[in-house]
Amino acid sequence: MRLAVDAMGGDNAPKEIVLGAMKAIEKYNDIHIVLVGNESKIREYLTNEERIEIIHTEEVILGTDEPVRAVRRKKTASMVLAAQLVADGKADGCISAGNTGALMAAGLFVVGRIEGIERPALAPTLPTIGGEGFLLLDVGANADAKPEHLVQYAIMGSIYSEKARGITSPRVGLLNIGTEEKKGNELVRNTYELLKDADINFVGNVESRDLLDGVADVIVADGFTGNMVLKTIEGTAMSVFKMLKTALTSSFKSKMAAAVLKPDLAVLKNKMDYTEYGGAGLFGLKAPVIKAHGSSDANAVFNSIRQAREMVEKDVSGTIKTAVEKRDSVTQ
Amino acid sequence: MRLAVDAMGGDNAPKEIVLGAMKAIEKYNDIHIVLVGNESKIREYLTNEERIEIIHTEEVILGTDEPVRAVRRKKTASMVLAAQLVADGKADGCISAGNTGALMAAGLFVVGRIEGIERPALAPTLPTIGGEGFLLLDVGANADAKPEHLVQYAIMGSIYSEKARGITSPRVGLLNIGTEEKKGNELVRNTYELLKDADINFVGNVESRDLLDGVADVIVADGFTGNMVLKTIEGTAMSVFKMLKTALTSSFKSKMAAAVLKPDLAVLKNKMDYTEYGGAGLFGLKAPVIKAHGSSDANAVFNSIRQAREMVEKDVSGTIKTAVEKRDSVTQ
Repeated sequence: MRLAVDAMGGDNAPKEIVLGAMKAIEKYNDIHIVLVGNESKIREYLTNEERIEIIHTEEVILGTDEPVRAVRRKKTASMVLAAQLVADGKADGCISAGNTGALMAAGLFVVGRIEGIERPALAPTLPTIGGEGFLLLDVGANADAKPEHLVQYAIMGSIYSEKARGITSPRVGLLNIGTEEKKGNELVRNTYELLKDADINFVGNVESRDLLDGVADVIVADGFTGNMVLKTIEGTAMSVFKMLKTALTSSFKSKMAAAVLKPDLAVLKNKMDYTEYGGAGLFGLKAPVIKAHGSSDANAVFNSIRQAREMVEKDVSGTIKTAVEKRDSVTQ
Repeated sequence: MRLAVDAMGGDNAPKEIVLGAMKAIEKYNDIHIVLVGNESKIREYLTNEERIEIIHTEEVILGTDEPVRAVRRKKTASMVLAAQLVADGKADGCISAGNTGALMAAGLFVVGRIEGIERPALAPTLPTIGGEGFLLLDVGANADAKPEHLVQYAIMGSIYSEKARGITSPRVGLLNIGTEEKKGNELVRNTYELLKDADINFVGNVESRDLLDGVADVIVADGFTGNMVLKTIEGTAMSVFKMLKTALTSSFKSKMAAAVLKPDLAVLKNKMDYTEYGGAGLFGLKAPVIKAHGSSDANAVFNSIRQAREMVEKDVSGTIKTAVEKRDSVTQ
């Protein structure tokens, strides 16, 4: 299997990207990696060339670029070329830690949607207290969604969790402001009705306060709500840690005690580190496209490559295609 | 001024409710409190009867009652009678720690909307790292909102913050998934346009990850999104504290260190305690209606009474009425 990696995307590119690719090559001997980017800069961090190919380009999409315009105009940008390799059948999937909006645009316009999928969805896996994690989708590929889009998110999330994460009959929950069936806005009330009849293990409405307790394996929301909740979790956790840090350095005595607790607190912070679960999948495309976190280190890049490999191996895109065709033939 | 207090609402009623009322009577000599509920149970905790009146009733709305039906049928429930006192002009505002939905229904059907206000909004004040707090509205009075509703929330929140919290020219932010003007779903994009022209200090879009940093004084959202974010903040903070507790009791050594840090951690937890800021105001009604947290202790009840007093004294409802009339005459 061949995976294309945008070597120039993210805060720590190309160093951490290349190191992550090296780690993946070492671990999995069934993958070839195509690194796309500035060849001489990539070579600085290359420790061996086994199953590695480099495609050189000078052009890069920046974090500040307007996504759709950047993908349309910067046709030789590392991210666009990586997606093009997938579109041309020269790679089975691609990974980038670059501009999220641009990667969504490249996925949509270059790699292309699975026929029957109305809207792709961006799907990160978030941490839970128990460590099992949950998939949240959509977190912003589409701000305005219709009930049928959410049903497709549910099906895609369920297939991914079963195939790539090995969860049997994944529990799918609908993100809502109450657990009762009639709760919420018009969108979720109508979606609830459709999810009851969908070919998934629908466990009903799920409240955002219970997410980190592992109340479901897949959480479905429109992109506006999903993105909002994702950023609220990140922001709140960060704020609590910030306040904790202030509290633990408020006096000499507390600094001493905090020093003793350092390893315990590191474990705690690691638990909240969702790059361990890989990047965010862009679901509904003809092949796996993974958005690694912008601040990814080598380990996060490795996890994203592992995730793409898993999705290719288990044919997640093909399974989604079949499920959507089956649903279309039933509902029409 | 006379304030009606539902003595039977909340997890710790009537004890903590009565004790909170006692504290308020002691602190403010310009208020009379009408305690509504089971007289003999109330009297158990009454420490003095100065400026206290009791209206006896046996009926209570439970947390499990269906809100609208409960308000319609239980006409002598303590919460409904408290609202009725306001409607009859026998009290200037009311407070309850009972069933949130029922209090919203009682506010709407018994106290009544200000003419021109299309939808009331539920507005709690949440903690920030700096301790100044921010007002979030709506957190669930209406799941589906239109742009004009959000503009009214913005105006009401701004007036409340200026009058009752003493903030000069409160910064009003629109909760969105990005700070750029064109970000978000259709609702927030259309709302943005209206807020630019409204008679408030609009500071633009605000992201949920920045809320606890005190990025604005008033945050406006539809009830679905607001409730979602409120519960995500609560759930995440609770989860982090839970994990922290596990980490700090993982070994004898960490337990010892944690004991030293106990006062610092207590300060931290207090910072996240939003009952210090009072209850959630139900804005847009003819008189102040305050929803105290269900788990309110005497101090939280005291803070809610203080808040109602402030709103009456500064005529928040009257100011909202004038502002809405002015806006109507301009926009029509």
